[in-house]
Amino acid sequence: MPDPTPGAHEILIKLTHAALNRRDVFITQGLYPGIVLPCILGADGAGTVAQLGEHIREPAVGTRVVIDPMIGWGTDSRVWAKGSHVLGMPGDGTFAEYVVVPAVNVHEIPAALGDADAAAIPLAGTTAYRALVTRGRCTADDIVFLPGVGSGVQTFALLLAHHLGARTIVTSSSDEKLERARALGADVTINYRTSSSWQKEVRAASDGGPTLAIDSVGGATFASCLDIARPAGRVVSYGGTNGDATIRPFSLFWKQLDVLGSSMGSPADFRAMLALFAGGLRPAIDRVFPLDEIAAAARLVDAGTQFGKVVLAIA
Amino acid sequence: MPDPTPGAHEILIKLTHAALNRRDVFITQGLYPGIVLPCILGADGAGTVAQLGEHIREPAVGTRVVIDPMIGWGTDSRVWAKGSHVLGMPGDGTFAEYVVVPAVNVHEIPAALGDADAAAIPLAGTTAYRALVTRGRCTADDIVFLPGVGSGVQTFALLLAHHLGARTIVTSSSDEKLERARALGADVTINYRTSSSWQKEVRAASDGGPTLAIDSVGGATFASCLDIARPAGRVVSYGGTNGDATIRPFSLFWKQLDVLGSSMGSPADFRAMLALFAGGLRPAIDRVFPLDEIAAAARLVDAGTQFGKVVLAIA
Repeated sequence: MPDPTPGAHEILIKLTHAALNRRDVFITQGLYPGIVLPCILGADGAGTVAQLGEHIREPAVGTRVVIDPMIGWGTDSRVWAKGSHVLGMPGDGTFAEYVVVPAVNVHEIPAALGDADAAAIPLAGTTAYRALVTRGRCTADDIVFLPGVGSGVQTFALLLAHHLGARTIVTSSSDEKLERARALGADVTINYRTSSSWQKEVRAASDGGPTLAIDSVGGATFASCLDIARPAGRVVSYGGTNGDATIRPFSLFWKQLDVLGSSMGSPADFRAMLALFAGGLRPAIDRVFPLDEIAAAARLVDAGTQFGKVVLAIA
Repeated sequence: MPDPTPGAHEILIKLTHAALNRRDVFITQGLYPGIVLPCILGADGAGTVAQLGEHIREPAVGTRVVIDPMIGWGTDSRVWAKGSHVLGMPGDGTFAEYVVVPAVNVHEIPAALGDADAAAIPLAGTTAYRALVTRGRCTADDIVFLPGVGSGVQTFALLLAHHLGARTIVTSSSDEKLERARALGADVTINYRTSSSWQKEVRAASDGGPTLAIDSVGGATFASCLDIARPAGRVVSYGGTNGDATIRPFSLFWKQLDVLGSSMGSPADFRAMLALFAGGLRPAIDRVFPLDEIAAAARLVDAGTQFGKVVLAIA
């Protein structure tokens, strides 16, 4: 591919690191709506400013930057504008030496954060921040339940909830992932495969139910979140891997729950999330592959055995 | 039954009118949790102050008053306290000449409102107010969808939404109820029995989906509310007559919906709701029965063919 050039309000970034999301793998498998080919995939990336567009004055060439992958969210904080999209399909993404993005999507990397760490954060970090904080209103008073803690977003949700001082309860089918979750601050870990009733265990560990649940499993897991939540609790959904959920309206109205849909993150979410990482918080990284081993990296994400992010080193 | 006497912080009310709710009928059929007998039923009532408890100074004996039927909500605006209950089981209720209630539950009737109208309002009015306004945050900018408009609460929701200046879309299986809903201000009425797709009709009438749906049907109707709601819309559930609902998490997270459970109303909800009726707003009353024809009144509510409230005249 020829090196891209920035438009008047864009910035050309020389990438040093990128990171994978399940989205990238789904696209290679044809499992994503509106696929347009050919396309360089990759939503997450960090590097240095290589060239500014005609109307752009900063950050200076050479500045270390990370990319907000949500292109064109728009002005409504509640939901993205029509035509907005995630970097890396349809527009060319970060699995490359160079990428061009709108200048408003370019953020200086906090000094405390290395390039690989910065590249691991964007899509999963902003999705977790919006689900947990903006939508879920998480505070230190919360008992947060995180089913399926292995995924990139759930790992960030655990990291952020622990950082905010909340008590955290996580589930996984893997004892190894639960062990790593404990290292990130999880207070209670439950293996849902070997538990006779993970729902009862979560309730017992939360004094009558979590005050906040963050779910992307969907199906019966999402339905259970409503059933075990404490009265006046919040259940945030940012995905539905296991499909339709048969819920009991009684759990919803009798306990006066807030069930809140969340997706990606707004520009304000990205900025607030990045500010948290300026204070020394570090993302969980499972493994770093060189860019030319991207196929192996994608197979790892497809298998789902990683804990935290899978990063690509480009430079 | 002997006439009751008020405790130190209670008030004895001589009732002139009461009103029925489905709850009263469900209790007579054994279809309610925790039934304690014997008991005088009835949550809704209005009358005059007959006697003040020892520590109570107002309102003066003879003042026209209406009762907030939610006893002991407590101090959390989000959800009632344990031990709180609705008037009329387990405590004796309003289908009687006299009733004793906590003084904090007694409110002066606005001058614009007759006793029969005041008696028709409490439980359904406060439930509708909380669902529509407190939880649903309804404003004049909303397009409000109200499935099953015949019920007491939905009729109040229609009345209040129209009063707040919102556009309203209602469904019913009865053309007669839809005709009465139009008279109360419904902008669009749809017969879901004869429509080939009421979901498509609602979307077409709302420029891409309602911004707010208020549901107590549950089941497939509740699930449809999520599917047809506009992005960033709100869906409030205050009941689930048709039971479990199989929902698509995709509708919830992709559109970033707020799905909000609501039940009864707090003391603040009751006061705010009553204040709206001080301005000349009037409840929809289907029929007034004398108290000694209460069995016929209950059969009407059980049949569900009424539109608005069924009132009892006691004096």
